[in-house]
Amino acid sequence: MNSYGKYFRITTFGESHGVAVGVVIDGCPAGLPFDLDFVQREMDRRRPGQSKITTQRQEGDVVQVLSGIFEGHTQGTPITLAVWNEDQRSKDYSHIADKFRPSHADYTYQTKYGTRDYRGGGRSSARETLARVAAGSVAKMLLAQVGVSVHAYVSQVGELALTKPYHELDLSLASVEQNMVRCPDPETAAQMIALIDQTRLDRDTIGGVVSCVVKNAPPGLGEPVFDKLHAELGKAMLSINAVKGFEYGSGFAGVALRGSAHNDAFYTDEQGRVRTRSNHSGGIQGGIANGEDIYFRVAFKPVATIMQDQESVDQAGQTVTVSGKGRHDPCVVPRAVPIVEAMAALVLADFYLASHLNRLDQVNHQTP
Amino acid sequence: MNSYGKYFRITTFGESHGVAVGVVIDGCPAGLPFDLDFVQREMDRRRPGQSKITTQRQEGDVVQVLSGIFEGHTQGTPITLAVWNEDQRSKDYSHIADKFRPSHADYTYQTKYGTRDYRGGGRSSARETLARVAAGSVAKMLLAQVGVSVHAYVSQVGELALTKPYHELDLSLASVEQNMVRCPDPETAAQMIALIDQTRLDRDTIGGVVSCVVKNAPPGLGEPVFDKLHAELGKAMLSINAVKGFEYGSGFAGVALRGSAHNDAFYTDEQGRVRTRSNHSGGIQGGIANGEDIYFRVAFKPVATIMQDQESVDQAGQTVTVSGKGRHDPCVVPRAVPIVEAMAALVLADFYLASHLNRLDQVNHQTP
Amino acid sequence: MNSYGKYFRITTFGESHGVAVGVVIDGCPAGLPFDLDFVQREMDRRRPGQSKITTQRQEGDVVQVLSGIFEGHTQGTPITLAVWNEDQRSKDYSHIADKFRPSHADYTYQTKYGTRDYRGGGRSSARETLARVAAGSVAKMLLAQVGVSVHAYVSQVGELALTKPYHELDLSLASVEQNMVRCPDPETAAQMIALIDQTRLDRDTIGGVVSCVVKNAPPGLGEPVFDKLHAELGKAMLSINAVKGFEYGSGFAGVALRGSAHNDAFYTDEQGRVRTRSNHSGGIQGGIANGEDIYFRVAFKPVATIMQDQESVDQAGQTVTVSGKGRHDPCVVPRAVPIVEAMAALVLADFYLASHLNRLDQVNHQTP
Amino acid sequence: MNSYGKYFRITTFGESHGVAVGVVIDGCPAGLPFDLDFVQREMDRRRPGQSKITTQRQEGDVVQVLSGIFEGHTQGTPITLAVWNEDQRSKDYSHIADKFRPSHADYTYQTKYGTRDYRGGGRSSARETLARVAAGSVAKMLLAQVGVSVHAYVSQVGELALTKPYHELDLSLASVEQNMVRCPDPETAAQMIALIDQTRLDRDTIGGVVSCVVKNAPPGLGEPVFDKLHAELGKAMLSINAVKGFEYGSGFAGVALRGSAHNDAFYTDEQGRVRTRSNHSGGIQGGIANGEDIYFRVAFKPVATIMQDQESVDQAGQTVTVSGKGRHDPCVVPRAVPIVEAMAALVLADFYLASHLNRLDQVNHQTP
Repeated sequence: MNSYGKYFRITTFGESHGVAVGVVIDGCPAGLPFDLDFVQREMDRRRPGQSKITTQRQEGDVVQVLSGIFEGHTQGTPITLAVWNEDQRSKDYSHIADKFRPSHADYTYQTKYGTRDYRGGGRSSARETLARVAAGSVAKMLLAQVGVSVHAYVSQVGELALTKPYHELDLSLASVEQNMVRCPDPETAAQMIALIDQTRLDRDTIGGVVSCVVKNAPPGLGEPVFDKLHAELGKAMLSINAVKGFEYGSGFAGVALRGSAHNDAFYTDEQGRVRTRSNHSGGIQGGIANGEDIYFRVAFKPVATIMQDQESVDQAGQTVTVSGKGRHDPCVVPRAVPIVEAMAALVLADFYLASHLNRLDQVNHQTP
Repeated sequence: MNSYGKYFRITTFGESHGVAVGVVIDGCPAGLPFDLDFVQREMDRRRPGQSKITTQRQEGDVVQVLSGIFEGHTQGTPITLAVWNEDQRSKDYSHIADKFRPSHADYTYQTKYGTRDYRGGGRSSARETLARVAAGSVAKMLLAQVGVSVHAYVSQVGELALTKPYHELDLSLASVEQNMVRCPDPETAAQMIALIDQTRLDRDTIGGVVSCVVKNAPPGLGEPVFDKLHAELGKAMLSINAVKGFEYGSGFAGVALRGSAHNDAFYTDEQGRVRTRSNHSGGIQGGIANGEDIYFRVAFKPVATIMQDQESVDQAGQTVTVSGKGRHDPCVVPRAVPIVEAMAALVLADFYLASHLNRLDQVNHQTP
Repeated sequence: MNSYGKYFRITTFGESHGVAVGVVIDGCPAGLPFDLDFVQREMDRRRPGQSKITTQRQEGDVVQVLSGIFEGHTQGTPITLAVWNEDQRSKDYSHIADKFRPSHADYTYQTKYGTRDYRGGGRSSARETLARVAAGSVAKMLLAQVGVSVHAYVSQVGELALTKPYHELDLSLASVEQNMVRCPDPETAAQMIALIDQTRLDRDTIGGVVSCVVKNAPPGLGEPVFDKLHAELGKAMLSINAVKGFEYGSGFAGVALRGSAHNDAFYTDEQGRVRTRSNHSGGIQGGIANGEDIYFRVAFKPVATIMQDQESVDQAGQTVTVSGKGRHDPCVVPRAVPIVEAMAALVLADFYLASHLNRLDQVNHQTP
Repeated sequence: MNSYGKYFRITTFGESHGVAVGVVIDGCPAGLPFDLDFVQREMDRRRPGQSKITTQRQEGDVVQVLSGIFEGHTQGTPITLAVWNEDQRSKDYSHIADKFRPSHADYTYQTKYGTRDYRGGGRSSARETLARVAAGSVAKMLLAQVGVSVHAYVSQVGELALTKPYHELDLSLASVEQNMVRCPDPETAAQMIALIDQTRLDRDTIGGVVSCVVKNAPPGLGEPVFDKLHAELGKAMLSINAVKGFEYGSGFAGVALRGSAHNDAFYTDEQGRVRTRSNHSGGIQGGIANGEDIYFRVAFKPVATIMQDQESVDQAGQTVTVSGKGRHDPCVVPRAVPIVEAMAALVLADFYLASHLNRLDQVNHQTP
């Protein structure tokens, strides 16, 4: 299904070359000041054509509010945000109407549905993620009310990895946005940009990693058992096009540690708050936030569309050659940064609302 | 919430030291032959006390059917499976009633709920996973009807990694179960056992990786957008206690590849079936199974309970020492193998049912 | 929340005087021929201004497809249908911006959300039901594939009741649509029209009953326990603005019968099909369709907006007079007929999809 | 599916003659004092064999807690309550193993699932409702914390109707429970008891109506659009075995009124609270509680099992005679009273939790 979230629930719609792509947000509390400019700025961070290392497609991606906002505030009613498709160039895609592009969703959609909108990937296009960024910007507005912030950045391109831990970096928006690859370490950023640019010149693509840090998440956020905070973050990240892996806290590297080294000792800080001395837990214990920074990493594969001839088959099963055409990203991670943030914000907003129903004292206190 | 799945839906209940732990399975089609012996055998694979490298707690974990089975078959009604708690030894836990064990869920549960059942971790105990294994065994029965099988094994303990790819291993149950660490490569298995045993003697614990392969998943399984097959697999795995990371197909390593090397070329095989020459996609493209093997890796941190003194705080925020007592696993991965399989089977059963509603011809064909 | 249905799931959005009202349909199988003209015809049946006994507001209510249709067929992707608001006349409503109209949702929305869009009732306006009719028309297309049809008509206005049972009436669309009150008995229809017209001249409103018959629903449709077919039909009907009651089969009158008179005896008909000699069950037994006609009745209260002065209070709690203005329906039931049909179709489409997962033989048979 | 509710969510399990019938309650806030005696008292109100006008089956129906309660309080974890089946007498049902009892669910279950547990109706038995009463008693405990109370009583048996409006009756538990038919008007109660007893002697059954009043529901409870408070109440009631109709407030009778008579004028009372002068709305406007009493009526058909021979068919479609045997209720409404209350309490508890997420000020205020 095309919905995500239980309390702060979004439903996205639209195909790459249909009339519009959009989202209905259901469950946002009434009374939240709505900042359309902020939504648009978030959209612009994801927009194609923003730099030489992203696709050169020019899409305005101007967001329009169809419902749910009155006198500048949310109303508790569904908020619908839509972007009209403009730069469609359907002819770009006619040559692959009956061909299965390697490592795309063409074959699996055709097999599953017996049909598919072959224009630009249709529903499987990463264009769907603009609806997520729009919705995520509303989630960010809600989270900002209680001081929660989400900071993603590019930490690896190909084998070129930023080795500094996140707490040694400036993760402010100004810092992350200062270069086109969205890596807050200027030296590494320059190398990454050169690598992506070279890959583009090679008519090839390359993968990368986006890291993300959530600051100030209230302790208690997240649900035990199946809907653990990191399980839901993992699902949200893995649902983004091209993602192949997710780890939080110590992640895969933590496997090699012993318990005595991995455990995060508790202490009480000067403000009387319970803290941990290390944070291998990544801010989450038993699936529930403990108040420390939440951090995780998301692996993106190289973009499947390359400017080269590739062997494949068509719908009749005949061998064909698929030739790269059009304007595509040589590396998806710079534009994935706002998408990772948006999905993280959606998960947190959902759990934030859920967290109000944990305890009887909480529930009774709040009754009008 | 304590439910998982949309069509094949389970709800687990019970605390480590309560009366019972169990599961209600809702949505299993009527008419499935029910094999209670198989369920019990799966439970036995997860059971504590099965070898020297697992906890020495002796729990029978005999499963009982409370509802849903009549004359040896499922009825389309909820199937309830329960295990009564026997070896509770509540006194083992009194010493930590008001202390927060490092890297456990004690602090976060207390913060979230204002209360917690401190006996053996209560609801946050890994004992909850026996309900998952029970439910997963029913999912396996359903999947077996269409030839889908799930094979997990231990591929890493600490830094000791099995480097052979899965297709060079014998993943049959006989092979995986032939040694106590559940690694199908006998030589590596012996080293892993020695490493775990040494860790145990050191009164410490260590992490590991469980790999899993799904064979014969029908093409078309999985839902696009948010409920991608690998996203749901990721969530299911990350919801297991102690899991820190998930990757499928090329995973984190795929980041370093170029698109031209990573893409899986399509061809038509001798039976006229569309196949891919490589399988970096891990059997999933656009979130939907393409018919190739699905494979993924799950990272487990070292068990948090160690037989050493650790610094911590109590509920009043005072510094305390937490001493390791009781009988615990020095490494969780051998017993995690059936749990990983169970969660994978639950995900696949859910998507298997969902997949019947994709296309009009399918839907109309089936109408009585 | 603003969604309905589990498998064939709709989410509606939009306020009376916002930019647009619309619906996202999720879960419609791929490959269904999409007939936009049919959708529009259904919309026209609900449209204001269609006769002298409905509101004289003129709204075109032209439906536009935003997503989900490609080459004339559904794609298994979300189908978005929207209607742009035109005849808004916001000034008509400024006089009640801070007043609570009696028996409207003004007070309860304000209390619940601390805000409300006072223009024409905002989200609580019956204008929301056009999204339901749009979605219901797609459900009807799906049901038509297997011969299921839904027939609603006006059976009562005020105390003027059509006493003939439904099987003595011609329930074809031509018959029901031949008069403006949508009562298939011309004589009664004429009386109803006169009664509504008189009520309108009295600057008052009046209630009524819509009856509905579902023909050819497959036996087995509906889920036992909580999601009984009639329970879900009841919820769907009661969710329509102004509905106060629902009964199916023998309904409230059945209370007075004895079991020996009420029970529907089974027999086998000439085609070998199991039938019942009477149908007090209304085609549903134990919450599941038995193959007989499903029939039910829906009670609508008199429209709350009357062209008279009424006592009320404003947001400050001060006594005020609310004066009837604008163009409103003197009786809602003629325009409610397509809404009742739409909601019934949505319930049936949802259960129709659900019914494919009942039995193992069914499920296995269908696997590709 | 076998679950009900979104926030306060229950899942029931068990067949009439299986091992146990029970319920898992998920989403109850932590910290609620749990009164097992109260649960048992509610169960006893529903229990068979309690008087001469109910079935003479003797079932102890002793409820056991399997999970979720620790030190006398809820823990935020799933609460499982179960009743073991004792007085099964399976032999009573062997004579109808392959026969379809008229107006029972035998035929529809068999058609839907291709199998059924024929012992006492299996899952379709009203024995399932004991799980609802158990869960409803926990919902009542939660509602009692904020002063909400639910009062059901028998208002009609056959044609014998209690004509006094509810506010002229004493709806206290002592009053309703003082006679075996649970009608708070002693004179009418005596007549009802005589009528039911006569019906029993006639080896027949008879229908009835249960009325229900909810006092002190907070204004704002209920969700607009699809999940209107009365729509959900209607579904909950219609999901109870044998229910044929639901109406709230003015109900079907309100159809005959004009708007000028039906509208409920607002005024401000001496405490400054907004009230309505009449209550045709039944305490609900636009699907949301307005603070007035909520009241509704539920129609129950005559019990299908009668002590007479009836024509029917068997699974082979052959004509057979079904003879009434066993011990059954001649009229279901006296025992339905606690079931109606339980379902109402479950609906209200669910909406009560939901209502905490309406407004930003509410949400932010409550954050720890």
